[in-house]
Amino acid sequence: MPHSNTPEEVHAATLSVLAFHALSTFELTSTDSQHAPSIRESIGLARLAGHSLEHFERLASQVADLGGDLTSLMESQAGSFRAFRERTRPKDWYESVMKVYVYDGIMTEYCRSTLTALDSKSREVVDSVFDDTRSADYLRECLRSVVSDDEVIGSRLALWGRKLVAESLTRIREFAAIPNTVFEKPDEALLQRLLAGHSKRMSDLGLTA
Amino acid sequence: MPHSNTPEEVHAATLSVLAFHALSTFELTSTDSQHAPSIRESIGLARLAGHSLEHFERLASQVADLGGDLTSLMESQAGSFRAFRERTRPKDWYESVMKVYVYDGIMTEYCRSTLTALDSKSREVVDSVFDDTRSADYLRECLRSVVSDDEVIGSRLALWGRKLVAESLTRIREFAAIPNTVFEKPDEALLQRLLAGHSKRMSDLGLTA
Repeated sequence: MPHSNTPEEVHAATLSVLAFHALSTFELTSTDSQHAPSIRESIGLARLAGHSLEHFERLASQVADLGGDLTSLMESQAGSFRAFRERTRPKDWYESVMKVYVYDGIMTEYCRSTLTALDSKSREVVDSVFDDTRSADYLRECLRSVVSDDEVIGSRLALWGRKLVAESLTRIREFAAIPNTVFEKPDEALLQRLLAGHSKRMSDLGLTA
Repeated sequence: MPHSNTPEEVHAATLSVLAFHALSTFELTSTDSQHAPSIRESIGLARLAGHSLEHFERLASQVADLGGDLTSLMESQAGSFRAFRERTRPKDWYESVMKVYVYDGIMTEYCRSTLTALDSKSREVVDSVFDDTRSADYLRECLRSVVSDDEVIGSRLALWGRKLVAESLTRIREFAAIPNTVFEKPDEALLQRLLAGHSKRMSDLGLTA
């Protein structure tokens, strides 16, 4: 007989996916920190990794409060996170920084829209994570200066951005397919909003989406 | 005419070396987090990276309070940090975790002994960093279980530990040679204490130094 999940289990499973996402962003930005062209950017990106770790901790603590076993919940998602990483492997530091900017931007908007069914405490934690614009602000300034300094890297990043937006939408459909979570399949209106948000973020860099 | 450094400049330069050390430990442990054999260890090591980032921030803020320019102070040390990283490049995850345990253990003891000439506020910051045993405690438990599970890895790590202790002492002599800092050349008594501390930490893992 199939086990019917309690709301607490569903909310814990949902938050564990977000915790995994935060840990993945920590990994990306800490790697970017190591390969940054200057010490100033190395420090800046290490701080971004720190923000993601804070997010991870808040989400992990709420999973625990809901009675969830974070490690085993995360283990069940390890394969899909690994597969996404493989198919969006950046070729260099610029592409890696761009990946966080594009993917995290789309994911943040998607999660804000889809996670309304969470209990109010979980919703509060999730909002605090997605309301934190420190990383997005830093990445925008960092990439804007890269793009304005070097046209060749700029057009490469524009191309890479197009691949990333397609992969991000695929990833969202994968999130929506994870059983026993509150992630929802994005409808046409949400998809249009995600694409508009992405275009805006690319324009902010001086690029066309 | 040579510029004579003020005490504030000397203390800021000293703390910037420690900040660089903390950022390097952040880099090592965040990389170890990505290559950890399980999600549990991946989370544990990400938290260690977070502790190092906290240390970095405390030291960075004190450098700023002393009127120092952290980035340019760190830039002057980039070459020697890179060279140390090159000559102590671990072959795998186990050696990388061991590197942090051994090197950080020796550095912590050395810095505690040599930094007595700092002003009291800087000393307080440095003590708060070196009194934090969370990372050392985690690494000890992690490595102890590795060593007790696998004799072959254990003897390899014992050998690697011997290389690391020699490299750590070389690194200490390099620190002592950085101009306009309060790092001191370790005398024979301190060297003996550092070696005894290292032997104790190796015994804690079930290994002979």
